[in-house]
Amino acid sequence: MSKSASPMGPPAAEAATPFALIREPLEEVERQFLAELATATPGIAAIGDYLHSGGGKRLRPALLLLAAELCGARGPKMVALGTVVEMIHAATLIHDDVIDDAAIRRGRPSANTRWGARACVLAGDWLYMQAFSIALRQRHFAILDELIRLTETMVAGELRQQEMAGTVVTRQQHLDLIEAKTARLFAVCCKLGALSVGRAAEAATLERFGRELGIAFQMVDDILDFTASEDLLGKPVGNDLREGKMTLPALYAYERADRGQRRRMELVMREGYATVGLAEIRELLAETGALERAMTEAREHAAAAQDLLVGFPPSVWREAMMALPMLAVERMH
Amino acid sequence: MSKSASPMGPPAAEAATPFALIREPLEEVERQFLAELATATPGIAAIGDYLHSGGGKRLRPALLLLAAELCGARGPKMVALGTVVEMIHAATLIHDDVIDDAAIRRGRPSANTRWGARACVLAGDWLYMQAFSIALRQRHFAILDELIRLTETMVAGELRQQEMAGTVVTRQQHLDLIEAKTARLFAVCCKLGALSVGRAAEAATLERFGRELGIAFQMVDDILDFTASEDLLGKPVGNDLREGKMTLPALYAYERADRGQRRRMELVMREGYATVGLAEIRELLAETGALERAMTEAREHAAAAQDLLVGFPPSVWREAMMALPMLAVERMH
Repeated sequence: MSKSASPMGPPAAEAATPFALIREPLEEVERQFLAELATATPGIAAIGDYLHSGGGKRLRPALLLLAAELCGARGPKMVALGTVVEMIHAATLIHDDVIDDAAIRRGRPSANTRWGARACVLAGDWLYMQAFSIALRQRHFAILDELIRLTETMVAGELRQQEMAGTVVTRQQHLDLIEAKTARLFAVCCKLGALSVGRAAEAATLERFGRELGIAFQMVDDILDFTASEDLLGKPVGNDLREGKMTLPALYAYERADRGQRRRMELVMREGYATVGLAEIRELLAETGALERAMTEAREHAAAAQDLLVGFPPSVWREAMMALPMLAVERMH
Repeated sequence: MSKSASPMGPPAAEAATPFALIREPLEEVERQFLAELATATPGIAAIGDYLHSGGGKRLRPALLLLAAELCGARGPKMVALGTVVEMIHAATLIHDDVIDDAAIRRGRPSANTRWGARACVLAGDWLYMQAFSIALRQRHFAILDELIRLTETMVAGELRQQEMAGTVVTRQQHLDLIEAKTARLFAVCCKLGALSVGRAAEAATLERFGRELGIAFQMVDDILDFTASEDLLGKPVGNDLREGKMTLPALYAYERADRGQRRRMELVMREGYATVGLAEIRELLAETGALERAMTEAREHAAAAQDLLVGFPPSVWREAMMALPMLAVERMH
């Protein structure tokens, strides 16, 4: 135990996190990510560095590494695949920020604010290509199939989100969106290790685990968008509704709201918090029980994720994976 | 001979073009392109259809099919690869138009003017992914390597062009750009057929042929940007210099221009044809011999391309390929 050695956070808490188990390969992912970036043109490398240095939990490569260990998959190939999923994640973030014209990401000016949308479109393209390039080096067709299908799903999901913006969507439309934009990537992260060692049954189970975890994670994200402080969130609070995006809490509130309250919500979706304040929306979410209902649903998906791990033989890896759904649901930001 | 059967253009001219030889597989490429698009979300499909229906010569799949025939490669795999290169081409066009904020493409409003930059970023992403997805179905790693490397080169080239915009570049910088943005795709089109049937030596020669052809093609494009009519060009004349892009004719004119003339050119690069008219620039290009010099250089690359085919046994395919460089150089638009 190196309780006082870590500069990363409270040592006691850290020792308890599942991520401590894969700290070394995760650091290798970090190194490979930066090394791959260094092969880009200076313009792309600068944007990539900026985006990457902004932090983020490296949740996706961490998930990939942990799930891989559960099937005995480790080593350079897993590090490479961890780099791939983090790069795909970075590419989608950068294009999403261009598309949303987002000014802030993780508490700092977004890359498109600093470098302009033009350079960011290309930097995103390059990150996608480089992710595929690294994946291609693994010479594994089934893995490439997963990654290409994944990125198409994510891109199509973002487009659907754009098309639905400003409209009152159905619960199913919203769940499909969560699936495409978040849960598929989690699912693929969880199955790649099993796939690479030819464990088809485990791959299928871990894919389902990742999907449930991803759904829970995104639902909590959408709740925190209303409840967290701007400081913790690293971006403005109440942003989704302002951008015309109806997430689960908003959907549930809308469902139980009266005609006048619905109009107030629609107003925010059209013009932001100009006429209707964030406080009023927060109150509506609380009084309709929408936040609680969404949270209950997130917890159900987290529990479903845990259930899927029961068939794996007990190990530190399984314990670590078991802890992830609750960490996703109970996090503060 | 079906002299009067074709609705596509003057029958005599058509019968003489190399493309008549591959009309059928090229039509299959057309069908596959549209069928693949139909699997996208409605938003992406609409943008892709629009872009595709705008015409264009399908030069890249045509080149791929002809070069493949030279090595005895034909059939569904070649049609699929033809679709792939046309899709990659479409993806780069759509992202380039977003980036350049282009209003016109092939004589019509550009896709970003019609659907907005947001949807076009995503449609471009999807086209890239779908291109890789089709290529992946061929289960050929070397082909995937080529395509990924190609797209990275094209994206990096476009970024360099953005970074260099508005500045006086060197001839070498400009040639590197032509290489990355145009000639690499031509080269890859020419080599994929040979590669798919394991003919490494022919692949290398055809790659060089495609490169020379691509350079010649782009040089003529850049000349036509100054000399053609807006009608023939399908976009505003003198556009490159207005956008701060120094192409070969502009570079050669600048080289021989006096101080005052250089200032006039720089003014166009900064503010368009507000103070300095296009007529003045055209005159400068003519009087400095810049257009002729650029044209001579394009013809040299065309001739170099033809020379590379000498080693192939005589066939209708070789004759057709032989005709391409001159067609590229002597075209009117």
